[in-house]
Amino acid sequence: MPYVNIKITREGATPEQKAELIAGVTDLLRDVLGKNPATTVVVIDEVDTDNWGIGGESVTVRRARGS
Amino acid sequence: MPYVNIKITREGATPEQKAELIAGVTDLLRDVLGKNPATTVVVIDEVDTDNWGIGGESVTVRRARGS
Amino acid sequence: MPYVNIKITREGATPEQKAELIAGVTDLLRDVLGKNPATTVVVIDEVDTDNWGIGGESVTVRRARGS
Amino acid sequence: MPYVNIKITREGATPEQKAELIAGVTDLLRDVLGKNPATTVVVIDEVDTDNWGIGGESVTVRRARGS
Amino acid sequence: MPYVNIKITREGATPEQKAELIAGVTDLLRDVLGKNPATTVVVIDEVDTDNWGIGGESVTVRRARGS
Amino acid sequence: MPYVNIKITREGATPEQKAELIAGVTDLLRDVLGKNPATTVVVIDEVDTDNWGIGGESVTVRRARGS
Repeated sequence: MPYVNIKITREGATPEQKAELIAGVTDLLRDVLGKNPATTVVVIDEVDTDNWGIGGESVTVRRARGS
Repeated sequence: MPYVNIKITREGATPEQKAELIAGVTDLLRDVLGKNPATTVVVIDEVDTDNWGIGGESVTVRRARGS
Repeated sequence: MPYVNIKITREGATPEQKAELIAGVTDLLRDVLGKNPATTVVVIDEVDTDNWGIGGESVTVRRARGS
Repeated sequence: MPYVNIKITREGATPEQKAELIAGVTDLLRDVLGKNPATTVVVIDEVDTDNWGIGGESVTVRRARGS
Repeated sequence: MPYVNIKITREGATPEQKAELIAGVTDLLRDVLGKNPATTVVVIDEVDTDNWGIGGESVTVRRARGS
Repeated sequence: MPYVNIKITREGATPEQKAELIAGVTDLLRDVLGKNPATTVVVIDEVDTDNWGIGGESVTVRRARGS
């Protein structure tokens, strides 16, 4: 019954990679806490780099600077 | 003053259906807890089926299998 | 398969009232969008009034002022 | 190390405005709580006006009515 | 730079189990998407069983019924 | 009408500091985007250091190590 929300920048994650994240985190919750995979929900949000900030700057600006 | 976030898969909910959700959940909070509709905020997120997992699989894969 | 998060101030909602919210929002999603109640998840967060702001002030301050 | 999520309606905020939000909220957390800007994360979600409700109505409907 | 939020019912997860979740999900994001562990943030929310609903009922009620 | 969620570790932020965060972020949204303070909602979540991970470790463990 857990709910997991994964937020990443939108930079080309493939459906296969997203399926790996879903499977991996569902397995982790079963292995560590005994949670039932059938009712484990995972939602992935892909966020534009203009809309993600770290260190007081957007990721767009950091990428442009080479950080 | 409540805040409600509804996450659903992106599968063609219409503006009319989304308006029904907004009205319905606002009414529910007024009826059950006496919350003021004027300051009740509802945000609906529609999530791609590749990005929603349940049972360790994406909804895209489940739909393709007929689940 | 929807996920709903309801945030309210912590001001004494009873288990019965929270059960009504859970049932009501689950029914709403079934009625409006045909969503399966068995996999509809609802999480209620109760937030201290010091930690909830509206109009630039905490709810604690507003309540003290009689707003 | 704080995490801040800002949700606004999608109505044309520019990259420059979003950068100002990111810088401003990061500075605020440093000034008020001494939080390290290097690990302060800010995520901005822009939400379609059909998907944002207040007062029991979508923002789309309110805007059309002139509210 | 990912941000992960894990919501589980509050039913006695230990600090060691929570540390395993944090390490596991951080590793997963590095392995699948090459994300930098140093800036991967994980937040675990433990939710009272009265405040978690599935199938239109609170987990408290389901547990009492033996579900 | 914006909604802002600020997550910080639970390490003794005072009501006065939380009020400063609420006022500051509300002002920021008015100044940068012209958002109406009257309907700007801010919710602060304080998270136990066992439940916050960065760099693959909980903040509890990092603090104990002197990081």
